[in-house]
Amino acid sequence: MTAASAAQDYAARLLAGDRLALARVISKFENRDRDSGEILRNIFRNTGKAHVWGITGPPGAGKSTLVDQMVRVLRTRGLKVAVVAIDPSSPFTGGAILGDRIRMQDHTSDAGVFIRSLGTRGKQGGLSHATLETVLALDAAAFDVILVETAGVGQTELEVLGLAQQVVVVLVPESGDSVQMMKAGLLEIADLFVVNKSDRPDADRLVHHLDGVLDLTPSVRRRPDILKSQATVGAGVKEVVDHLIHLADQNLEERQRRSREFLKREVLHILIERLSSSVHQAFETSSGMDLLAQLEARQVDPISAADLLSGN
Amino acid sequence: MTAASAAQDYAARLLAGDRLALARVISKFENRDRDSGEILRNIFRNTGKAHVWGITGPPGAGKSTLVDQMVRVLRTRGLKVAVVAIDPSSPFTGGAILGDRIRMQDHTSDAGVFIRSLGTRGKQGGLSHATLETVLALDAAAFDVILVETAGVGQTELEVLGLAQQVVVVLVPESGDSVQMMKAGLLEIADLFVVNKSDRPDADRLVHHLDGVLDLTPSVRRRPDILKSQATVGAGVKEVVDHLIHLADQNLEERQRRSREFLKREVLHILIERLSSSVHQAFETSSGMDLLAQLEARQVDPISAADLLSGN
Repeated sequence: MTAASAAQDYAARLLAGDRLALARVISKFENRDRDSGEILRNIFRNTGKAHVWGITGPPGAGKSTLVDQMVRVLRTRGLKVAVVAIDPSSPFTGGAILGDRIRMQDHTSDAGVFIRSLGTRGKQGGLSHATLETVLALDAAAFDVILVETAGVGQTELEVLGLAQQVVVVLVPESGDSVQMMKAGLLEIADLFVVNKSDRPDADRLVHHLDGVLDLTPSVRRRPDILKSQATVGAGVKEVVDHLIHLADQNLEERQRRSREFLKREVLHILIERLSSSVHQAFETSSGMDLLAQLEARQVDPISAADLLSGN
Repeated sequence: MTAASAAQDYAARLLAGDRLALARVISKFENRDRDSGEILRNIFRNTGKAHVWGITGPPGAGKSTLVDQMVRVLRTRGLKVAVVAIDPSSPFTGGAILGDRIRMQDHTSDAGVFIRSLGTRGKQGGLSHATLETVLALDAAAFDVILVETAGVGQTELEVLGLAQQVVVVLVPESGDSVQMMKAGLLEIADLFVVNKSDRPDADRLVHHLDGVLDLTPSVRRRPDILKSQATVGAGVKEVVDHLIHLADQNLEERQRRSREFLKREVLHILIERLSSSVHQAFETSSGMDLLAQLEARQVDPISAADLLSGN
């Protein structure tokens, strides 16, 4: 079988609902395999239908429990659901997500549920590229809802979350200094705040505090809503799902804007990947090694080296 | 003043030791200001002399205290020291590094010490690009040692740490499951493990355990050493500094390899930044908007769109 026909075969099996082919395709995307591009080309036509929801929040907020319960609610409605857990970053905290996934094993016998973790990739932008393409693969495999769960909101995670059609930020009463929680990009990306563990004493206080912060926050976008849940007993989860579906129906314009951003970003990732590989190759040639020696000797500066490499 | 002469002026003041100019240049690099390139061109000749050491470890390991004490030791030897604290990522944990920095205020009246935090940038690769150029600015400003401190080892942090000439991983006896700690890229980037808070009961056990893990880990590089410290009282810090200076002298080949990687990466960042900006512009043109509409309608796939944009 030629490489192109192997890629077509993977794509055809994925589109026919073969879970093993889906898993292999995602691995190929994650590893930036040589036939990734050809597979993507063959499945892209079948994408663009899924709802993509991002879920983030601090460690211990109960994200995975909430996601687990959202999967149950969506399944009772006959929707196919995929969960992509982004293991963001750290060897120091890397255990948590894998551990949480064990609970999700309840769903393993259910062909309407697919769960996948993606880890840190060494390459520039590798994880967010792999996440985008994993979402495309799941979309093509006819999953109705794709939940992208991240444990943090670093650069990669913000990038990925910004491309979800809806973003849920899960907090708990004891999340700590809520001014800190509002830092950085969180307010800009949240479409919905969920105060989980709502049986805890300070839950209502956090809701009021969030309300106050949102009142003071000028935003060009729709003001994020705040819901309460107690995911361990399934309380409030149906409302979260309903709200997200409602938002998707209401904000068609915003949804389209994010889909376009998603597609632009995917094209940019492909071009960056090509650029990186051609630059690495260029530095392996004898003129590239000369250029590197001149950089080391400070005879050429990096801007001029970039000009030279790009033929300017 | 023209833009080019303003850039030359900043560069000249930075090279003359003006701390305000240095701070402004770093901000320009961080914000990717238009004259960043021209400034870099003007200071690059004066780079390549500093020692660049990366420091990482889990939250609570005492990294900042150790860094603080390392600064003291280096200052007693008359060396100029800069600290770049990478606030990696998270609005949820973002408070820690800023809080830790307060302790460093002891050094604020010392012209031989410069401390700077860099935060998450929205753009693709923005933080690691800003970090590389900040290191170049500090190097040009004649700091002898540049300590790059990160709180995690996500994609960005691993990339940045991989370009330091030496990497110190700080652990504490209670760091938890040490097999987890050894995950991902940590073992590959560590040149030195420091078991901090060595007065705690399990410190020696962690040292032995680390030893065992390193015995079992095949590596093409030099086996990382393990030292103990109790940074709160300054114990073991001098040994850490001596060891890093010794390593720098011993491993000239490895140091040169990393300097070359650093320079390649900087050139690649410049090219990626140009590419990103030209792709964003291309999508604003009418043919770009047509292409985006065709992508949305699934009439063109992202690979073909990338081909079209790059003129293939």
